[in-house]
Amino acid sequence: MIGQDTAADGCCPGLLTAPLDEDASVELARVFKALGDPVRLRLLSMIASRAGGEVCVCDLTPAFELSQPTISHHLKLLREAGLIASERRGTWVYYRPLPETTDRLAALLTRGAAPAPAGARA
Amino acid sequence: MIGQDTAADGCCPGLLTAPLDEDASVELARVFKALGDPVRLRLLSMIASRAGGEVCVCDLTPAFELSQPTISHHLKLLREAGLIASERRGTWVYYRPLPETTDRLAALLTRGAAPAPAGARA
Repeated sequence: MIGQDTAADGCCPGLLTAPLDEDASVELARVFKALGDPVRLRLLSMIASRAGGEVCVCDLTPAFELSQPTISHHLKLLREAGLIASERRGTWVYYRPLPETTDRLAALLTRGAAPAPAGARA
Repeated sequence: MIGQDTAADGCCPGLLTAPLDEDASVELARVFKALGDPVRLRLLSMIASRAGGEVCVCDLTPAFELSQPTISHHLKLLREAGLIASERRGTWVYYRPLPETTDRLAALLTRGAAPAPAGARA
C-alpha cells in the first residue's frame, strides 16, 4: 500500500514539499500509472461514484466498446494499485472503491501536505 | 490544460462523484500517465519542493544515474502534461512547478470534490 515506506521514515512528506526518495517514487508511480489510462479512469470513476458503493462487472462492461477480458484486465490493474477491491459472488465479480488510496494521493498532491491520517500508517 | 472540458460542461464533477466522460478521461489520463514513472515523480518533487521556486536542469541531472537527454525527455513529458514550466536562460534550462495542475488533481481525487476554483475555469 502506498505511503508505508514514507510513513516508516517519520511520515509522509508529500510529493511537493520534499524530494521523494527512490523507493517511495517506485511505489507511487505504480498507482499513478494505473490512473494513466482513460478506460481505467472511467472505470474507477464509475465504481467510486456508484450510490450503492459496489458495482457488478456486468454493469461496467456495457459502457465500453471493449471485450470483457479487456475490461477485467483494466480492473485488475486498478485492484493491484490498491484503488479498488473485488469480490466474487455467484456468476459475477463486484467492485468497490478503496477511498483510502485516493485520499492518500490527494494528500500527496496538496501543497504543504499534512501527515497522513493515522489509519494510513499501517 | 486539464479541467477545461469538464468546466465547459458546467464544471468539474470530480473523479469520484460522477462517471467521468470520455473526453475528460483522455485529458486526465495524460497527466496521470506523466506521473506514472518514478524518475518523473522524483523530478517533479525536486522541482516543486525547491525553496527558490526554480531549478536548473544542471542541478537535477546529478541526482540520477541517467543521461541528460533522458532527464530532458522526462522533463518534457512533465511539461507537456502541464505540471512544470521551463525557461532557457543562457546555457541552462530552468524549471518551475505549475501548482494549479497538482491542485486540480488533488481536488479531483478528493471525496465530494468541490467545483474547481474560478481561476481554473479558463
